[in-house]
Amino acid sequence: MKKLINKVEDVVKEQVEGLCLAHPELMLSEDPCFVYRKADNDSVALVSGGGSGHEPMHAGFIGEGMLRAACPGQVFTSPTPDQMFECGKAVNTVKGVLLLIKNYTGDVLNFETAVELLHFEDIPVGSVTIDDDVAVKDSLYTAGRRGVGATVLIEKIVGAAAQRGDDLGQLEVLARDLNNKSRSFGVALDACMVPAAGKTSFDLADDEIEFGVGIHGEPGIERRKTCDVQSLVADMLKELLENTGYSRTLRTWNRKEGSWDEVEAQVEDFTAGDELIVMVNGMGATPASELYGAYREVYKGLEAAGFKVARNLIGNYCTALNMEGFSVTLLKADEEALKLWDAPVNAPSLRWGK
Amino acid sequence: MKKLINKVEDVVKEQVEGLCLAHPELMLSEDPCFVYRKADNDSVALVSGGGSGHEPMHAGFIGEGMLRAACPGQVFTSPTPDQMFECGKAVNTVKGVLLLIKNYTGDVLNFETAVELLHFEDIPVGSVTIDDDVAVKDSLYTAGRRGVGATVLIEKIVGAAAQRGDDLGQLEVLARDLNNKSRSFGVALDACMVPAAGKTSFDLADDEIEFGVGIHGEPGIERRKTCDVQSLVADMLKELLENTGYSRTLRTWNRKEGSWDEVEAQVEDFTAGDELIVMVNGMGATPASELYGAYREVYKGLEAAGFKVARNLIGNYCTALNMEGFSVTLLKADEEALKLWDAPVNAPSLRWGK
Repeated sequence: MKKLINKVEDVVKEQVEGLCLAHPELMLSEDPCFVYRKADNDSVALVSGGGSGHEPMHAGFIGEGMLRAACPGQVFTSPTPDQMFECGKAVNTVKGVLLLIKNYTGDVLNFETAVELLHFEDIPVGSVTIDDDVAVKDSLYTAGRRGVGATVLIEKIVGAAAQRGDDLGQLEVLARDLNNKSRSFGVALDACMVPAAGKTSFDLADDEIEFGVGIHGEPGIERRKTCDVQSLVADMLKELLENTGYSRTLRTWNRKEGSWDEVEAQVEDFTAGDELIVMVNGMGATPASELYGAYREVYKGLEAAGFKVARNLIGNYCTALNMEGFSVTLLKADEEALKLWDAPVNAPSLRWGK
Repeated sequence: MKKLINKVEDVVKEQVEGLCLAHPELMLSEDPCFVYRKADNDSVALVSGGGSGHEPMHAGFIGEGMLRAACPGQVFTSPTPDQMFECGKAVNTVKGVLLLIKNYTGDVLNFETAVELLHFEDIPVGSVTIDDDVAVKDSLYTAGRRGVGATVLIEKIVGAAAQRGDDLGQLEVLARDLNNKSRSFGVALDACMVPAAGKTSFDLADDEIEFGVGIHGEPGIERRKTCDVQSLVADMLKELLENTGYSRTLRTWNRKEGSWDEVEAQVEDFTAGDELIVMVNGMGATPASELYGAYREVYKGLEAAGFKVARNLIGNYCTALNMEGFSVTLLKADEEALKLWDAPVNAPSLRWGK
């Protein structure tokens, strides 16, 4: 295994330390581990987290107009409840804390425990689970759909709404609405190498790709032969656009009752004329040039299908260590969402320099 | 070969098209190929270029406060003189055009021809060659030292000076001064795959790294065994800091005489107490998390040696397709350089979203 690391057990600790050394406005709690910033006003604290290995998500998105804090687990491993609990206590203001969770069984379990613990401390707390991956319904680590790239877009838009002063209930409604308007689909050309495992997470032949891959290398719809990017994107757009009429039950925290409600939620269908925010996201080892080549196909395909690409984001945002491949996320955006998308953001991974 | 491309011969054309579709403020000349933006004032037009495969460098840096235009060659191949010539004519204002060249034999030859052609058109033109790589003196494609990561830093700082209205002569002096204050050193963990070749550019065993690699996979100082990032960075800093007393002859364009002068220029030594801008640059396939782990070692090593890390830049800026590895660039910065570093920049690869 060739990696820029010291001891495997120190990987996350040292990388987070490096982040905070580079960007001194970020503060580090070592035990339990979380990264946070001072509140610049009394806005709701938006907190996310999950297994490490997806950088810059989430800690690289801490900054005015986006996250207040992030709780990194070990690589591809959920953070523990006490990370989110102590983090929530540290960043709470009078307006409360909103946790954004990617839909993986471990994450959901641990975040939900943290929600309950924060509630018992009389901290106003909410949580929204993101499940945007249309590739598979149940997967290696998930009941339901996986939470992937839309997390980046939702953290940005909801972060802007938090910054302007929206209250906890409004932010929950907004985040759930955005999640219902989001879809992602990923493809791997080559597997990633997990430090603790010391080997690649799966194996692909020289002419094979994983179609519908998750952000930990979980299997997708099928292993298929390589093809040109035009054909590949055409197939991805088909999956993204034709996956209609889908609803699922998501647990939502009832602050008044202090209990979980089971809420049926419908994923919105996409129809010609919709305005979309489009992310072409590198999985870690894909050159920027190829992402732009892929974006060209995505843009042309969407315009040909009658959609309007209103905004775009192209680069490495929701990665899987050094996996080669990319994902496409589409978010159906109204004027309000576009306004929040365009609002200033000052996070280390989304701005110029230190 | 697994790549997100269509036909090999269309790779650069389509990727540049994707860039301009994503960022409509960028304009594309197809034949000869260059990317440019409208002048927002009558400042000197800063133009760079070189072989493709190093994205986001250069076209991703076109924007107010940085480049006016970029001329992409085929992958790892110099652009032709007529690309820079037509580009220079298109973006010239009354204050002229400054070409920034990375020191590779092909680039220097073709850029110098373009300088002469622009001069014959009565366009005020200057050129500065960047040669910051301390690893080797002569290399596969270079007489002298290679031009690598410092190009990013110099384009930013000189771009800010152009934006505030500095004239051509001032910008040339500034760029040469910054080049004399810059050093870079790179390491490859794994080779990249060049589309036209259909195979990796070199081969490394599972426990080998290339120490001192160039941005096209050119050999460095030695092929050595892998080690932890702390030891690796310590060795890189030794090369960066102990490489002293070095001068070389660089050709500079004499606008008055219309001819080239041979100018002896001294690389400045670095001494404890110096303030540094530090870039930890991914070569394309290195996870952001590992770059931050490497930055931690760079920061600690420099502070221990008595330097002050005044600014930092961490991410994929000067890449080699999907090469795994990273480089460290140090630039000795005075107050003026830091002020220009901090000036606003509005380029696609250095800001939030579209």
